[in-house]
Amino acid sequence: MNYPITIQGKVEAALVCDVPGSLVSTRKEKMPVHLAGIPGDRHYGYTFPSNGRYTMYPRQTEIRNSRQVSIISVEEVAATAAELGLPGLEPEWYGANLLLSGLPGLTRIPPSTRLTFPHGAVLIVTGENAPCVNVGQVIQNQFPDRPNLTSGFVKAAFHRRGVVAWIEHPGYICPGDEVTALIPELVDYTQFLR
Amino acid sequence: MNYPITIQGKVEAALVCDVPGSLVSTRKEKMPVHLAGIPGDRHYGYTFPSNGRYTMYPRQTEIRNSRQVSIISVEEVAATAAELGLPGLEPEWYGANLLLSGLPGLTRIPPSTRLTFPHGAVLIVTGENAPCVNVGQVIQNQFPDRPNLTSGFVKAAFHRRGVVAWIEHPGYICPGDEVTALIPELVDYTQFLR
Repeated sequence: MNYPITIQGKVEAALVCDVPGSLVSTRKEKMPVHLAGIPGDRHYGYTFPSNGRYTMYPRQTEIRNSRQVSIISVEEVAATAAELGLPGLEPEWYGANLLLSGLPGLTRIPPSTRLTFPHGAVLIVTGENAPCVNVGQVIQNQFPDRPNLTSGFVKAAFHRRGVVAWIEHPGYICPGDEVTALIPELVDYTQFLR
Repeated sequence: MNYPITIQGKVEAALVCDVPGSLVSTRKEKMPVHLAGIPGDRHYGYTFPSNGRYTMYPRQTEIRNSRQVSIISVEEVAATAAELGLPGLEPEWYGANLLLSGLPGLTRIPPSTRLTFPHGAVLIVTGENAPCVNVGQVIQNQFPDRPNLTSGFVKAAFHRRGVVAWIEHPGYICPGDEVTALIPELVDYTQFLR
């Protein structure tokens, strides 16, 4: 793989989904990442049981886990909050593992982009994450006086809900760390279909 | 992930790299694929020790294995053979696991493309495979009277050496099977960098 474009960003928060029965994540000062996932996180594992996102499989089918890490950006979260007319949205409510800044259009960053961190961790982007009503419901609960936030979030966060990634090399990630994004070569594949 | 484009191809050969100490693969009538890899293949495993392809790690660093399956196409192999002035090249010499037909520009198919097969197997494309001198040497050994095939292969197979993939769902693959390629949405990410 060639990586002709390099971008630098910053880790604003590192979080683990470690509250049983909850989607919400918790901020950490130092978050270990292992090859099998983030220890204690509900998405930990080399494999995991498929959910409603995988319409091609019956639910609970064991598949390889390429959603070990959920990543969002300050800029896209702010745009979503602005569109909803809210003062702000917290990464905890997204159940995110990383809140980054400085990577423009994070949600549209190409699959197989390589994210490297200073303390060993290397993540590979699987692809765009689709916003869901479960996060919408968490946000609705935060603003009980505001109507229609559950479905409103799904609409406002479209193409702004970040990406999921898997872990290529272990390490740990802290708030304040730099992140380097190595963007793979972009090819217009449709040229081969003409 | 959205998959706006679907292409159909065919499995021309299924092969396993199961000869100890050799890069060459062997054709099978029925090739099982497990979540951890192709049983008996030298690239089997959820993780593997990095090699010279991973210049960012010291050799033998344990990393997640996203090169479980090596895939090439009849059309690109033929183009490489033609450029080298050879009568043909065999998938065994590539150490490939799958020889496909009908997927144009296979090497340039986007990362995170989903390849589905009729007997359960689902593969996810990691990205382009770079041609190496090891395969060049195997080809050179087949044509001892032809000079410079080792380095000649590396040049002729550039952007024609297929892709590597990892296994999302287990199953088995046979010669003659159909393969369906679900191509993810193509985004010009550079629009966010202007």
